Amino acid sequence: MAHERAPGLKDVAKAAGVSVTTVSRMLNGSLDLPAATKQRIDEAISALKYQPNPHARRLSRGRSDTIGLVVPDIANPFFATMVAAVEEAANDLGLAVSLYATLNRTGREVAYLRLLEHNHVDGLVFVTNHPDDGELAALINRTGKVIVVDEDVPLAMVPKLFSDNLQGGYLAGRHLAEFGHRNVLFVGGPDAMISTQRRFNGLRSGLQERFGEAFSIRRYSGEYTVACGREMARRFLEEGSPATAIFASSDEIAIGMIEVLREHGISIPDDLSIIGFDDVSPLHLFAPPLTAIRQPVRAIGRRALSLLLETNWQESEVLATEELVPVEIVVRNSVAPPSTRNKQR
Amino acid sequence: MAHERAPGLKDVAKAAGVSVTTVSRMLNGSLDLPAATKQRIDEAISALKYQPNPHARRLSRGRSDTIGLVVPDIANPFFATMVAAVEEAANDLGLAVSLYATLNRTGREVAYLRLLEHNHVDGLVFVTNHPDDGELAALINRTGKVIVVDEDVPLAMVPKLFSDNLQGGYLAGRHLAEFGHRNVLFVGGPDAMISTQRRFNGLRSGLQERFGEAFSIRRYSGEYTVACGREMARRFLEEGSPATAIFASSDEIAIGMIEVLREHGISIPDDLSIIGFDDVSPLHLFAPPLTAIRQPVRAIGRRALSLLLETNWQESEVLATEELVPVEIVVRNSVAPPSTRNKQR
Repeated sequence: MAHERAPGLKDVAKAAGVSVTTVSRMLNGSLDLPAATKQRIDEAISALKYQPNPHARRLSRGRSDTIGLVVPDIANPFFATMVAAVEEAANDLGLAVSLYATLNRTGREVAYLRLLEHNHVDGLVFVTNHPDDGELAALINRTGKVIVVDEDVPLAMVPKLFSDNLQGGYLAGRHLAEFGHRNVLFVGGPDAMISTQRRFNGLRSGLQERFGEAFSIRRYSGEYTVACGREMARRFLEEGSPATAIFASSDEIAIGMIEVLREHGISIPDDLSIIGFDDVSPLHLFAPPLTAIRQPVRAIGRRALSLLLETNWQESEVLATEELVPVEIVVRNSVAPPSTRNKQR
Repeated sequence: MAHERAPGLKDVAKAAGVSVTTVSRMLNGSLDLPAATKQRIDEAISALKYQPNPHARRLSRGRSDTIGLVVPDIANPFFATMVAAVEEAANDLGLAVSLYATLNRTGREVAYLRLLEHNHVDGLVFVTNHPDDGELAALINRTGKVIVVDEDVPLAMVPKLFSDNLQGGYLAGRHLAEFGHRNVLFVGGPDAMISTQRRFNGLRSGLQERFGEAFSIRRYSGEYTVACGREMARRFLEEGSPATAIFASSDEIAIGMIEVLREHGISIPDDLSIIGFDDVSPLHLFAPPLTAIRQPVRAIGRRALSLLLETNWQESEVLATEELVPVEIVVRNSVAPPSTRNKQR
């Protein structure tokens, strides 16, 4: 048989008279088929010399049937959960996923973005967690077929998918305002990142809505890590801040802060209220169960993949889009009215 | 210049008169160097036409300078943390890591193992979570350069690295026995996996040591997931088990069980004691803080990489080794003496 390209799933499906999904699932071992159907597919695979391993196939033609996924820190449950969602959605479509963790270092990000230039992957879902001086954006714009997720790469002209961080900040601010908190500590990630900026702006508008200008926000910025949360809690205690509530803008930050606050005998929410962001960790089992803004992490992962596959990469004038995924507040038990004890601090 | 192979880090380092680590770290962006040193390295790179991107380099020679890491479920914090440790250790050595999540499906495992045959990676750290009918082992033995981690692939003749699950089970059993628990529910992962078998055997020997034969263990098996934990807790409640303590053999199982037990108003440890396994999730912040056997997850990740790099793959007669990483018990507050209420159940 003469093929311009190596045979794909479609060719096998057509020859066997079944759907692409059926072939794909059989190859993935996730579907039990009648023996006769299985035989037809096996025969089609033999006749077409179809190579079911996408990594072998990519040697023989331009397409790899592999999606690349680049994240800063896989130990962070937010990214780990997002990755799992992409993996599951890709598996349903018969695609392999190559995953790369950059440790948030530009050198590694650049190396992994270049995979695309060498056809090792058909497209990339890309997450960075640090400001870009233009290097990443230039590479992304040159290689194309990249979806920027979670944090912005401002000069990249590709589809972008973010949580509605502004709305998330607003929901946190409104909730704290409802309980009467006028003095709030905001603990964000890196100042240059949109997640921090938008969550902060949202918090401010939530408080403003209720209090006009009669409120104050103390702002700390750092990283979305447990270590940073610990450090920020120590700073908070040393400064003797008048804040009666904390908006910790990630699960990791909240965990680090709660550890230190507890060590200092501070009772949540009796002495101090706290509201988190992400809700990926088991916050519902904490003492007390933590109120938090929930990011729909799995939905973000699935949507990132569908954006990558649906985008018409030829129409470069409409590539630069920004899509926001809605967030919600999950009210538990870590926010209470400001305590008398706090007011005296 | 005539090279049998494309120039590597070593050649650049030699030409620039610096260490390989210095070159590697400069390329990774993790080291600030004096301008003169940086220039020497840059000149050496130009002169040798060194291609600092390992993924581009692998096109031009047999070695990829990339390690593959295959795990079942990246959303599980145990695997996510292990992966992060491998990534960090690899980065220190100037190696890239390609990560593959198999969703615990044989088809995907086989596809990813074949990467090795095609030189896409120099070696694999491989984790599976289901029994092997011999297919995986045959592929592993054929391709070589695979380290089997966390769960066994029994017929694979390669170095293996496991937590000391037997010791972990024993520590849990001894701790429960010290509090007087003679009726224990063991909730394991899949029955066929060594983690489940060894943790169970360890639990039994810990109880035996204290009670002789005057104890009983009810054994449930399932998967290391939150969903399974929920299901097992419901089963426990429906059966009206006499157990006064539960050994939940993963964080995920413990989390699912605690959710359901709480919904049913069961107080831990007043009504029922529970001890977990893994200690990767923030169990210390739970209500109550959960006592658990801690796996040294990051140490396992680092050791897996060093095993892969240290093994002399030519000496096939000594390949099949098994190394156990010690575990420890972290005593918090979820185990108490059997309550009167429990005894009456």
